[in-house]
Amino acid sequence: MNPLDNIRVVLVNTLYAGNAGSVCRAMKNMGLSRLVVVSPRQEWNEADVRQMAVSAADVWEARTVCATAAEAVADCVAVAATTARIGLYREHCKTARGWSPELLRLAAQGPVAILFGSEDRGLLNEDVALATHLINIPTSEAYTSLNLAQAVMVVAYELFQAAGIAEPVVERSELASIRFREIMLEKWDVMLREIGFMNEDKAEHMMFGLRRILSRDNLTVNDVKILMGVAQQALWAAHEGPVRNGRRVSEASSAT
Amino acid sequence: MNPLDNIRVVLVNTLYAGNAGSVCRAMKNMGLSRLVVVSPRQEWNEADVRQMAVSAADVWEARTVCATAAEAVADCVAVAATTARIGLYREHCKTARGWSPELLRLAAQGPVAILFGSEDRGLLNEDVALATHLINIPTSEAYTSLNLAQAVMVVAYELFQAAGIAEPVVERSELASIRFREIMLEKWDVMLREIGFMNEDKAEHMMFGLRRILSRDNLTVNDVKILMGVAQQALWAAHEGPVRNGRRVSEASSAT
Repeated sequence: MNPLDNIRVVLVNTLYAGNAGSVCRAMKNMGLSRLVVVSPRQEWNEADVRQMAVSAADVWEARTVCATAAEAVADCVAVAATTARIGLYREHCKTARGWSPELLRLAAQGPVAILFGSEDRGLLNEDVALATHLINIPTSEAYTSLNLAQAVMVVAYELFQAAGIAEPVVERSELASIRFREIMLEKWDVMLREIGFMNEDKAEHMMFGLRRILSRDNLTVNDVKILMGVAQQALWAAHEGPVRNGRRVSEASSAT
Repeated sequence: MNPLDNIRVVLVNTLYAGNAGSVCRAMKNMGLSRLVVVSPRQEWNEADVRQMAVSAADVWEARTVCATAAEAVADCVAVAATTARIGLYREHCKTARGWSPELLRLAAQGPVAILFGSEDRGLLNEDVALATHLINIPTSEAYTSLNLAQAVMVVAYELFQAAGIAEPVVERSELASIRFREIMLEKWDVMLREIGFMNEDKAEHMMFGLRRILSRDNLTVNDVKILMGVAQQALWAAHEGPVRNGRRVSEASSAT
């Protein structure tokens, strides 16, 4: 099973409907689906939730509602509380990144809850007391208070990253072999001499600079084909010129 | 200096005032302070911005306003574009985490811009074309579209995390500004049409590919001068040809 399916986002005493909706979206973006709402502090307009949830209304619709945080986490194997006030529990506190691998290991064994407090008061002491893990989100000292949905995003993002199910960025095109790259560079060397860009004295130095520019990182087969095409075409234009707009200017018209 | 002070968040054609406010808050939470707003798509109610910015109104008040993304990044040494559509340029794309140390190293040398597109359309191709780095935020396949401010938060969070550990390495040669790079690319565009490398139909696609090849990683002022010289010389050769070994072949000898 996917451990992310065992991670439960618990919103405790949340104030704003829009934040609840944004939380749903952030969760779905990061592969989380279990939302628990614990006694919101005010009546929410359903439309406000859905406006911010956008295509994550399914997370909202599948939510569980509980009266207390204790009830929401009763069947969990671990409870993480997010808090800016590390205070007494400093030694049990790690960053979102620091705890993510551990929380995922636990989620492979049973439900894991992450508690988020209200926009103005955060989590109450009695809620923090339920926690087996304390999560701190590193911030600038200039402004330590994150928007609720932003805090959920950071934690969800770290869990998603740790879960390693993000589709790795795969190279689609095949990388060029060194041999192919060298053939292209040889063509450039010839072209640059022919067009008069460099003379014998400067050629080696110039080609060194161009190699760096044209082949830093990884050139794909396609990249090398494009570069080869540029050199061939510039050579053609130089030999066949005068050329304008890709066409040979006839002797007659060039004489005018 | 703190490299985060050299990182510029550029919001291109943003729709909603609330998102702009949330972006300010996320930025300040993560130690960023430079906001540039490029032609918002609708009139914003100032109160809506401030409501979401909360204690980050100072970021909002210190914003710069520009008409185009090109103007917003003209003096930058690097431009990162955030995009969900990796498409053709997959191989140049890294995650927010992957690029952060590199972007911080660059920010130690000059302004670095991060472009964020509009809520509904994302970045236009012409804006992505300005980018020296492409950033992808890994998401669940079930819902790949992040709220704008959430996307800013993830990128800002990664930069802030990386700033805590990244040791800036200073490059010896001066990096080229985007403005200088664009002038060079414009010269290449003209040259490649003149030598017949690409016709009108393929020009945009080809230039996109060449931009990637010619400006991946960090071009120094010297690199751009070399590339400018190649384009100028190839143009000269095409116009003045037939040219061999850097010299015009006289009419007489070319006739033989």
